[in-house]
Amino acid sequence: MAVVIELPPLVDHHCHGIVRGDLGIASFEAYLTESDAPAASGTTYFDTQTGFAVRRWCPPLLGLEPHCPLARYLARRRELGAYETARLLLRGSGIGTYVVDTGLPGDLTTPAELAAAGGGAEREIVRLERLAEDVAETCDSAEALVEAVAEAVHAASDTAAGFKSITAYRHGLGLAPEPPPPGEVRRAAGTWLAARRDGGTRLTDPVLLRHLLWTAVATGLPLQLHTGFGDPDLRLHHADPALLTDFARATAGTGADLVLLHCYPYHRQAAYLANVFPHVYADVGLALTHVGARAGAVFAEFLELAPFGKLLFSTDAYGLPELYVTGAEAFRGAVREVLGGWVADGAWAAADARRVAGMVAADNARRLYRLP
Amino acid sequence: MAVVIELPPLVDHHCHGIVRGDLGIASFEAYLTESDAPAASGTTYFDTQTGFAVRRWCPPLLGLEPHCPLARYLARRRELGAYETARLLLRGSGIGTYVVDTGLPGDLTTPAELAAAGGGAEREIVRLERLAEDVAETCDSAEALVEAVAEAVHAASDTAAGFKSITAYRHGLGLAPEPPPPGEVRRAAGTWLAARRDGGTRLTDPVLLRHLLWTAVATGLPLQLHTGFGDPDLRLHHADPALLTDFARATAGTGADLVLLHCYPYHRQAAYLANVFPHVYADVGLALTHVGARAGAVFAEFLELAPFGKLLFSTDAYGLPELYVTGAEAFRGAVREVLGGWVADGAWAAADARRVAGMVAADNARRLYRLP
Amino acid sequence: MAVVIELPPLVDHHCHGIVRGDLGIASFEAYLTESDAPAASGTTYFDTQTGFAVRRWCPPLLGLEPHCPLARYLARRRELGAYETARLLLRGSGIGTYVVDTGLPGDLTTPAELAAAGGGAEREIVRLERLAEDVAETCDSAEALVEAVAEAVHAASDTAAGFKSITAYRHGLGLAPEPPPPGEVRRAAGTWLAARRDGGTRLTDPVLLRHLLWTAVATGLPLQLHTGFGDPDLRLHHADPALLTDFARATAGTGADLVLLHCYPYHRQAAYLANVFPHVYADVGLALTHVGARAGAVFAEFLELAPFGKLLFSTDAYGLPELYVTGAEAFRGAVREVLGGWVADGAWAAADARRVAGMVAADNARRLYRLP
Repeated sequence: MAVVIELPPLVDHHCHGIVRGDLGIASFEAYLTESDAPAASGTTYFDTQTGFAVRRWCPPLLGLEPHCPLARYLARRRELGAYETARLLLRGSGIGTYVVDTGLPGDLTTPAELAAAGGGAEREIVRLERLAEDVAETCDSAEALVEAVAEAVHAASDTAAGFKSITAYRHGLGLAPEPPPPGEVRRAAGTWLAARRDGGTRLTDPVLLRHLLWTAVATGLPLQLHTGFGDPDLRLHHADPALLTDFARATAGTGADLVLLHCYPYHRQAAYLANVFPHVYADVGLALTHVGARAGAVFAEFLELAPFGKLLFSTDAYGLPELYVTGAEAFRGAVREVLGGWVADGAWAAADARRVAGMVAADNARRLYRLP
Repeated sequence: MAVVIELPPLVDHHCHGIVRGDLGIASFEAYLTESDAPAASGTTYFDTQTGFAVRRWCPPLLGLEPHCPLARYLARRRELGAYETARLLLRGSGIGTYVVDTGLPGDLTTPAELAAAGGGAEREIVRLERLAEDVAETCDSAEALVEAVAEAVHAASDTAAGFKSITAYRHGLGLAPEPPPPGEVRRAAGTWLAARRDGGTRLTDPVLLRHLLWTAVATGLPLQLHTGFGDPDLRLHHADPALLTDFARATAGTGADLVLLHCYPYHRQAAYLANVFPHVYADVGLALTHVGARAGAVFAEFLELAPFGKLLFSTDAYGLPELYVTGAEAFRGAVREVLGGWVADGAWAAADARRVAGMVAADNARRLYRLP
Repeated sequence: MAVVIELPPLVDHHCHGIVRGDLGIASFEAYLTESDAPAASGTTYFDTQTGFAVRRWCPPLLGLEPHCPLARYLARRRELGAYETARLLLRGSGIGTYVVDTGLPGDLTTPAELAAAGGGAEREIVRLERLAEDVAETCDSAEALVEAVAEAVHAASDTAAGFKSITAYRHGLGLAPEPPPPGEVRRAAGTWLAARRDGGTRLTDPVLLRHLLWTAVATGLPLQLHTGFGDPDLRLHHADPALLTDFARATAGTGADLVLLHCYPYHRQAAYLANVFPHVYADVGLALTHVGARAGAVFAEFLELAPFGKLLFSTDAYGLPELYVTGAEAFRGAVREVLGGWVADGAWAAADARRVAGMVAADNARRLYRLP
């Protein structure tokens, strides 16, 4: 006996902008993977769960059959143009609110443009390392840099829904948990400024990364932390969220919440942290998007230890409007399959399943980010 | 074609006592989580797999509908009183033997009281760190402490079914595998006694923890080791049972068996150790209790590499009589779902499934702990 | 609505020889486990997923019922004799090409003998550590050893399909990623030769292990790397393929491909590496063989992140011809269950499922190893 679980418009608490122009097949393909290299000879990134999910869910929103030939889909996309394609896909995604990390490079749509195309609301998440790198452009002393970062974080906290850190792939999550002393921060800032003069702009210094984390924590806004898989420049085992245990302990009681993003394949570890630390949340986003037909299985693993009030939906979509659709469909399919299955078995009451679905789809994010 | 897999009365080879008095909603809720903090604002620990499992399985044993409103369930509990509630729940759990770790603090029932309420048999497991902390109360020199610990372990081995170590959350499992030399043990004992005079009573010294492990191994009784998730004061990745590989190698041939408790989310690692080391066993307890509707999925992961003669049932129940019920039902449901499914597919013969179910439910524990 | 997914003759890209003589029950049992010790008292390695899989799939190929009593199966085996048993089992396995790692000790069949018995084609994989240990027999100076290794690897590359390293259980995968400088290699070679004169023959020196890896990479042939579970002398967490991230980065662009073998329980980590590095492949072999009825579940986890053009079938069969059958059946069953299930759900198109099945079964290996 199947149970119907209706979902409200989704709050996508972690996504990015989309590219503006039309895309050829090669540039389209490049957005289907976290790799920064072309696919191996004899293979294509369309032959992945992400590729198959795009071919399943997106053609119908553009008036084609699911799994239609790729060439036909891309032709239809060109026929409609980039803007109309984005509009149709985003409005078909069922997402009502876009909480956008604006820290990615490239000519991507702003949160306002994205929300306008999708017919939804929007908020911004400020990426700490990008903020520091932008600020460093205008500073010529360590003292100035430290002060300018503090001001920029404070200013951002007036409007941003939260902050995000990519420490996981800049250094790894195995950082000393406490805030670094001011003297160390100044020294590290000086060393980084000197390195920037020699052409190295990326922020990878662990003292500065920790300082950014604690500066964000001091605002009391939620702090999103990349954990688990994603960009190819990380070492996966250095992105295990369990490495954040001491940081979670150190930030308990500060009033700031931590949101563990992505987490896969360490999502059970992330769920454990969300279970034992009241201020830790976990995100099922990127994982569900990338595993396609396996979204239900991965979602169910999250739901083993994570308290149901601590899980958040996101797509982590980036570049292609298609990825908002696949992320949202992966989530809705997972909810139907997993929660629906438990109701059918008698393990859960139908009313509880509906309530939990609504919490993960939107309510938890609304409460955490204080959205209307 | 469904196969019926009957189970004998279960041997719960790792559980604790229950609280004696009546419980209000907040104190009841606190037992549903491994966290030591109140639930995050806007959330409740009832919204977890453990909470949903209690609401599924326990109301019928008290004459109510599954998933009935929580207030009604707690009212019925008060109406019956703590003792009668415990009696009804424990006798409805299908557990026939309680092997009780008596090392937890708090006013909990003794093994004899628990078994009397549940109408079953009982044995005791002695927790090494608690034993050492109790012994240290009466010792004023390192020599006296070392001797008193040796005597206490020896005395306990006359009646206990085995020992248990919580090294995983006192220090982590990354310990040197060999027994520490006597001189080192004496020095560490002296340092700890001095620290105790300053008010620090918890045993966290790795030399003493290793010494306790080897003292227990010398008795030849099974040694239970906490691994994986559980108390919030652990670092999950320091509790990966794979860290015990060298200790397993060092204790092979001593005659003592090692029992890896809980293991989640590293239960596949635990199953590997049980596969390659004849004296290593693994426990499916706490994991199944906590993951509720996912018990079958986690149990199936254990059954990938673990030899069927090496897996043990437990509830790790503590405080609430409800948790014996949910642990036992999670296990029985997992057996039905997983083993029953394999029989239906033709992967396993029905007779084998029944035999394996009986082994994990009771026979393996009877053989390991030499129970009647 | 079930979809039929036909598979071509399989390319088993990683297997070993089989034993020549008849086997008693104890020696037969020893091949069902990765342990080097007899089963624990009161247990048997037949009570494992591997044992149950042998009893499911092999009796029918010898004219008996699935799951027939073990004694009957072994009697039938003796009646047929070792050669005829092997012939019937191998020809019933559906394997068409055997790519054989010849580095195991013991009196095992050669690749040609194996292929003749199975009626298939064959190629050889040369195990680097064995090659170095063989070469060391004839060298009396570090210079001679270094030169002889270079020549032997070069000579092997003329005929071998690829190389294999067991660094994972000789030292662990946490090696410095870059090639060691020649001076260090010479020094390490000298130290090892001296140790050999004292009776220590196993190659465990990390400098020499790295040198072998880079010598193999220089040939441009695929390099198989043991990762994850397997032999009992490894520490599982030191065999996590994520530890190879820096080595993967260092070898990108050399023209040599890396093939991560086994991977379990870190197969999601392996799939991630195959996703982000074009020259990294992953193997589902030993895991599926050992987890029996769970093969579909583990295969599905591989298919979350691994691009479909990067996965390879193998059995890692060794000693018993039965293990070729169970490895192949585990794979075919997994394909039917997992890919068939996705087609039934509408997640995948049937034509895509058939295409992906053929890629993993044979096409990917043919392309990678340049097989006809």
